[in-house]
Order: sequence, then structure tokens, then C-alpha cells
Amino acid sequence: MNRPILIGITGGTGSGKSTVSREIFKSIEETDIAIIEQDSYYKDQSHLSFEEREKTNYDHPFAFDNELLIKHLKGLLDRKPIEKPIYDFEIHNRKKETELVMPKDIIILEGILILYEKEIRDLLDIKVFVDTDADVRLIRRIQRDIQERGRTLDSVIRQYMETVRPAHLQFVEPTKRYADIIIPEGGHNRVAIDLIVSKINSILNEN
Amino acid sequence: MNRPILIGITGGTGSGKSTVSREIFKSIEETDIAIIEQDSYYKDQSHLSFEEREKTNYDHPFAFDNELLIKHLKGLLDRKPIEKPIYDFEIHNRKKETELVMPKDIIILEGILILYEKEIRDLLDIKVFVDTDADVRLIRRIQRDIQERGRTLDSVIRQYMETVRPAHLQFVEPTKRYADIIIPEGGHNRVAIDLIVSKINSILNEN
Repeated sequence: MNRPILIGITGGTGSGKSTVSREIFKSIEETDIAIIEQDSYYKDQSHLSFEEREKTNYDHPFAFDNELLIKHLKGLLDRKPIEKPIYDFEIHNRKKETELVMPKDIIILEGILILYEKEIRDLLDIKVFVDTDADVRLIRRIQRDIQERGRTLDSVIRQYMETVRPAHLQFVEPTKRYADIIIPEGGHNRVAIDLIVSKINSILNEN
Repeated sequence: MNRPILIGITGGTGSGKSTVSREIFKSIEETDIAIIEQDSYYKDQSHLSFEEREKTNYDHPFAFDNELLIKHLKGLLDRKPIEKPIYDFEIHNRKKETELVMPKDIIILEGILILYEKEIRDLLDIKVFVDTDADVRLIRRIQRDIQERGRTLDSVIRQYMETVRPAHLQFVEPTKRYADIIIPEGGHNRVAIDLIVSKINSILNEN
């Protein structure tokens, strides 16, 4: 059995990277593919008070438990099941429960900062950066946070200007350099998604 | 028999687009694939004197005979052979001879301004923009023009500043918006080339 293929899909908030991951996932037999979201690997913050945890900057590389993520990716590449953590944004902490993820031929790793750390980059076979203009990304974030998360426009914009935007420019955008391919306009880019799905199918056929 | 697949590969001077095209070409059976260079479709200038022809701005969209190119692309898509023009940069004019190109399942169209004209864009099934930093592209152009074309550094830089760079910023760079995928660092990007080759092979297998 060959080593599984690890595909990294990144891009800023609202870029459409989750849509790209989901579209790829939907095109492949579920028995062959798993998605790992970097968001599941926010650090355990049990040692902090709720007030301290509330201040978490979720856009900063320090917020992620890369050590555990790397261990799990290596596990999946060795065809071993992992216990993926579950993060609870309401309590700003990792849950006690975990989710069993079985090894698959194709693993998608998706998140804003998956190309930031060299050790993670080096594990990825295909590195994809979903590139969408900042204004379009902002619109999507505003709509999502107001409609799905019940936030006010003011609070979305304040957070965007205070943490999301600076972190994007400082940490996310520069990782575009490490991408093998850049996909403009994310989830609605059928041609690009189709290219990745073709590659995955050719790998599955070889296996 | 299905309609052939037309793949456009563009990018600035020195971006590595020709290398990408060649690498794809080398990975596919020669019986299945043809490359059309936009450079072959510079306008016939027989009505101009040599002095007038010497002033041709080869980086401007007006320099191309898109009418003939579109006619030929449509011909190839209809599985008809074409007589591709041959351009002679020494006399700044189209040659009398032409080159017979047979229809193939896969046709690559390669050039700096293939995404500029809507009618050409609409014919392309996969639109690829090879994106390389301007300084790296300049270095490649200097090396190529000095080594292969016997030019002086001064003349290369003068031409670059007077016509190549302005035309790139005005005409080539904005066409990146139309790309389905953007490939950083061109010809040495094995992962991206491999994605395109996989897609081509899956199309050929279906046919």
C-alpha cells in the first residue's frame, strides 16, 4: 500500500478554501478521503480563565497546537487512526471529547495557516492557496458572521481590523509563496477543482 | 470523437511558461498533443518598409493577428489541419512558408497575451497563468537575450524599460484575473505540471 497523499488547502478568511475542500471531498468516494481542519487544532487552554481565553487571537500562528497536528498527520500517513480534537469556540477551549478519524488514501488539510510551519509544509504533497480579493473575502466574512453567528456589523469590522486583517497580511498572505498552485476565486472555480480531483482519481487508480 | 481540449498557458516574459508547455508536451504521447505559440501569429507586415517593421512593439496586443489565430484554433477544435504561419524576427515579418499542424486531442496555446482577447479566452478549457516575480523574469530575459541572441545588456535593459515592462503591467498582468489556476515559478513546479498532465491523461483515457 502506498503512502497516503496529503493535500493542503489554504487561503485567507472568506477565500473559499472550505468550499474547495468540500467540493473535492464530494467528488471522491468517502471511503477514500478525509478532511482535517486546522481549526480543530487550536491549543488547549484549560490552564487559562474564561476571561483570559476570551482574548485568544485565533488568527495568530501561536494559537495552533502544531505539535499535535503534526503528530496526527504523521499518524495518518502511517495509516494509523487518530483522535482528532474538537474545539469549542463558545468556551474558547478544546472539548474533552475527540473524534476518531480513520486513515484514508487521500487526506485534505485545510486552514488559514497550514503553510506557515515548515514541518507541516514538508508533509504536504500538493499545496493549494485559494486566492480571493480582500474586499470579496471581507464581504463573505461579514455575511457569515452576521447571518450564522448573530454578530453585529460593528463587531465584525472591529475584529477584522484589529486582528484578522493584520494577521492575514503578516502571516497568511506570505505563505502564498509556498503554494504549488494558486486558485483564484475558490469554490466556484470548477476547472481548478476538477484538476485536483483528476489527480486524486489517478492516484486512487494507481493504488 | 470528443471536442479536443484547448489549454492556454500564459505569463510574462521569462515566467517559465514555455518550459511549462514543453514539460507538459514531453509527458504526453506526441500523437495526442500539439503546441501553438502565439508568437507565430504576429501580424503580416509585408505592406511596411523594413524601417517601419523594425519599430514593431512585440509586447503590444495590436502586434498579434488574433483573427487568424482564432480561425486556426476553431479549425483545430473542429479536427481540421491548419497551416500555421511562421514569423521571422530578423526581417520582422511573416515568412512565405507555413507549417502544417494536424488536429490533436490536446492543444496547448502558449503566449504572453492569450488571455487578453475574450474570444480566445472563451475557447480555452483550462487557463493557466505562470506567475514569476518580475526580478526573476528580468534575470532570465537578460541571460537569454545576451546568450542566445547576442544582445548587449544595455539594449536588453532599454527595451525592457521602454516596451516590455510597460506592456506587461498594462496588458499581461491584468489577464491573471482570467486564469483558472496560477502556477508560481513555472517550469520547475513539478506538482503543478503533474496536476495538468493528470488531467490530460484522464481526458485521453475517456476519449
